[in-house]
Amino acid sequence: MNPAVDLNSDLGESFGRWRLGDDEAMLDLVTSANVACGFHAGDPPTLRRACAGAVSRGVRIGAQVGYRDLAGFGRRFIAVPPAELADDVVYQLGALDGFARLAGDRVRYLKPHGALWHAVIDDEQQAGAVVAAVRAYDDRLPVVGPDGSALLAAAEAGGVRYVREAFADRAYTSDGRLVPRTQAGAVLADADPAEVGRRAVAMVRDGEVPALEGGAAVVRFESLCVHGDSPGAVATARGVREALVAAGIDVRAFT
Amino acid sequence: MNPAVDLNSDLGESFGRWRLGDDEAMLDLVTSANVACGFHAGDPPTLRRACAGAVSRGVRIGAQVGYRDLAGFGRRFIAVPPAELADDVVYQLGALDGFARLAGDRVRYLKPHGALWHAVIDDEQQAGAVVAAVRAYDDRLPVVGPDGSALLAAAEAGGVRYVREAFADRAYTSDGRLVPRTQAGAVLADADPAEVGRRAVAMVRDGEVPALEGGAAVVRFESLCVHGDSPGAVATARGVREALVAAGIDVRAFT
Amino acid sequence: MNPAVDLNSDLGESFGRWRLGDDEAMLDLVTSANVACGFHAGDPPTLRRACAGAVSRGVRIGAQVGYRDLAGFGRRFIAVPPAELADDVVYQLGALDGFARLAGDRVRYLKPHGALWHAVIDDEQQAGAVVAAVRAYDDRLPVVGPDGSALLAAAEAGGVRYVREAFADRAYTSDGRLVPRTQAGAVLADADPAEVGRRAVAMVRDGEVPALEGGAAVVRFESLCVHGDSPGAVATARGVREALVAAGIDVRAFT
Amino acid sequence: MNPAVDLNSDLGESFGRWRLGDDEAMLDLVTSANVACGFHAGDPPTLRRACAGAVSRGVRIGAQVGYRDLAGFGRRFIAVPPAELADDVVYQLGALDGFARLAGDRVRYLKPHGALWHAVIDDEQQAGAVVAAVRAYDDRLPVVGPDGSALLAAAEAGGVRYVREAFADRAYTSDGRLVPRTQAGAVLADADPAEVGRRAVAMVRDGEVPALEGGAAVVRFESLCVHGDSPGAVATARGVREALVAAGIDVRAFT
Repeated sequence: MNPAVDLNSDLGESFGRWRLGDDEAMLDLVTSANVACGFHAGDPPTLRRACAGAVSRGVRIGAQVGYRDLAGFGRRFIAVPPAELADDVVYQLGALDGFARLAGDRVRYLKPHGALWHAVIDDEQQAGAVVAAVRAYDDRLPVVGPDGSALLAAAEAGGVRYVREAFADRAYTSDGRLVPRTQAGAVLADADPAEVGRRAVAMVRDGEVPALEGGAAVVRFESLCVHGDSPGAVATARGVREALVAAGIDVRAFT
Repeated sequence: MNPAVDLNSDLGESFGRWRLGDDEAMLDLVTSANVACGFHAGDPPTLRRACAGAVSRGVRIGAQVGYRDLAGFGRRFIAVPPAELADDVVYQLGALDGFARLAGDRVRYLKPHGALWHAVIDDEQQAGAVVAAVRAYDDRLPVVGPDGSALLAAAEAGGVRYVREAFADRAYTSDGRLVPRTQAGAVLADADPAEVGRRAVAMVRDGEVPALEGGAAVVRFESLCVHGDSPGAVATARGVREALVAAGIDVRAFT
Repeated sequence: MNPAVDLNSDLGESFGRWRLGDDEAMLDLVTSANVACGFHAGDPPTLRRACAGAVSRGVRIGAQVGYRDLAGFGRRFIAVPPAELADDVVYQLGALDGFARLAGDRVRYLKPHGALWHAVIDDEQQAGAVVAAVRAYDDRLPVVGPDGSALLAAAEAGGVRYVREAFADRAYTSDGRLVPRTQAGAVLADADPAEVGRRAVAMVRDGEVPALEGGAAVVRFESLCVHGDSPGAVATARGVREALVAAGIDVRAFT
Repeated sequence: MNPAVDLNSDLGESFGRWRLGDDEAMLDLVTSANVACGFHAGDPPTLRRACAGAVSRGVRIGAQVGYRDLAGFGRRFIAVPPAELADDVVYQLGALDGFARLAGDRVRYLKPHGALWHAVIDDEQQAGAVVAAVRAYDDRLPVVGPDGSALLAAAEAGGVRYVREAFADRAYTSDGRLVPRTQAGAVLADADPAEVGRRAVAMVRDGEVPALEGGAAVVRFESLCVHGDSPGAVATARGVREALVAAGIDVRAFT
């Protein structure tokens, strides 16, 4: 049996007049689409199109939930009390699910976005709120997050399935954590797509990635995240997908 | 068999720190709760509480959809292109449905709010967009609106069930239309609840209401709307309900 | 003395993560910058940068006021009651003026955006509200709008200076009105910049422009608007400016 | 010479349909009005009315700046990068200043609201950003905050005047800090207005207040804050003012 991996990417992040990313091109490359839900990005027509485009290609729809912060694109931590945060997550799940159902499928998983993604690595209260929302809404929905995060611990404790993700275009420290974006070299944004592709293949094959400090970092994951909104995003995602396929790795959704 | 009527009211219209209306008291009196969906009012915790309160009392949950306009409370017409408006309606339906399902039920009907309610009386494009959204989302959902409106015509044309509503605390012209709020005497806001109750009973019994110009206006309806956000709202709603019950009229949901 | 004309363009229309237009490039070409004020576009850092960039080049700052509608980019008519609309305009004027003063200048004029621009062509109430706001805020501020509009009539009646604008990259009907964007041929978006430049020169020289139906339309204006947010915007603006300069026309601000 | 103190309160916190507090009644009692600026509360008509009401009574207008968070009423910390926060503060200052000037005065001071108020007690970066905004906008504007806060330290370091405030209706710990609202007894909300009045007089006279743990806390201040949005707000504010006046203390603005 071949090794397999899922490819996920953030989509549906346009808002009104403002376009971001090339959803149609990315949908041809990924297997799981993290679709924004309107709180930090994503107006209703964008959600409808992203869901329709995903379903027509067999790409799975995930809820890319975030803080209510259009001005900050969900990238600023907000100290939302856990009970309110859970309600905010349910609201976003329901809203996106409407469009997923219109397109003939339904929301298949949840992945926090931006500052919420970062918060639920360590913040047990916010991680617990996200998991509580998933359990209340549909306890069969898996959550996606990095290995070792408070989010996955809360999911495990709550009986919610989880899927670990890693990044082919981000630098890792030797303890397997992402190098923060504020640090030089954190994002391999201008890297040669073929190089990122080789990196992805090695990550899947070996469960390791070269660490920023030298040596190798162990990374455990079922899904690789590729970024959707940088100028070279489509080329990088294509490089990753083609390299995986060429290496005999099945690129398929985890759900 | 007794005559019967539904009582509907707008609820869930608080937002964050700002409270509006007394949802708990109103839920003891009405049979259908038009719950705001977040575009013109209604933050997620408010939606959760309104849905839970409705289900625990057997009150039906309807989606009170409106324009995206918190500053205007949805009371200002917005020339939203029909396709976008349909998407906005689907988004709101889905978001509320999440909370309705959490509470153990689901959204049972849709009623436009404020300026959208007024628009779909005559604006065939916007009325058609609302009905298109309902059909796409769940074609068994009835829409609620006034007799003779473009909304009900579009519903009929589209094979969507509709329910007609009338107002016990609003003045009517002799052709059966509401007197606009900008006109003196439009709202019987300070009326004695018992008086509004008698008016409601007569409307159900006779299908008529005294017209502002004198004489009687014919009104056809299956649901009576009582307002939820004026100072005397609870007392008026109680007056209407008690008068209906005392007159041997069944007060029950239409769905 | 040479003939002269002002070149104005909409700038400052980014919002948070979402970028729109190339403000820096446009500021090298225009003489008046219509800077968005946050209601339909323009977050505070964008406003600060646009104002600083304008002042450093001697470009005049105008308040590009619009409806409160980020999702619709201010392009959807909203039936805002006149008194509220005047308050919304004052709010936007003040907010932008803070950044203009930080940059060492101040707001020098006002131009309505999008659906508000269209509304004040014919809607006397909304036009009156805009002019009332300007008079209350600073009655020396001119308003910019098309010849024959309700806005300019209200300005004249209210003793507010006004400046007429025309469009080098839009089609005109023979009565001197813009062809609506919904109609084919309304925008000369893909036109050769040199062709638009020739058109601009002819408009300034002759006060006429070829009409869509054939023949010529009379256009009276002191300012030419060039669009800032289409893909070829910078090239078109450069074509217009270069053609005007080459024809011996002074390109300078009206204020 | 009599001892003197300023009375400040948060006003202008309504938004659209949602009313909060009784601005007109409070303006009869306070000497400084912290008027919300639209980011966490306060729509333009509310700002206009609050400014007009303040000026007509000789009450000073201050900018109650907060995080951009209507849903959270500015009460949730947001990790806004300092440069963006400074821009957000300038935007709010300018917007309110427009209405203050319309009313015949101008913004006279700045006081952070809610979570931003709490953040600038200890967060030197956000405190520095607020002071940087004030310096850039108008370096004669004083900032209001609690004694010992990072805000006042940043103001002192930046050459910006500051005014210390204390609370007559909040419990203090023995080291002179406010008891957090999440702790029982933090707010003397239901206290007898006369009792809060006596407490206020003692604070002004003695520079001390009884601490929650027993003993006395030293409090240094030039302004007393009274809350504007609780049910008994007006009665409490009246109790404070009347007690101060009866004790021969001048109640007057600090600017």
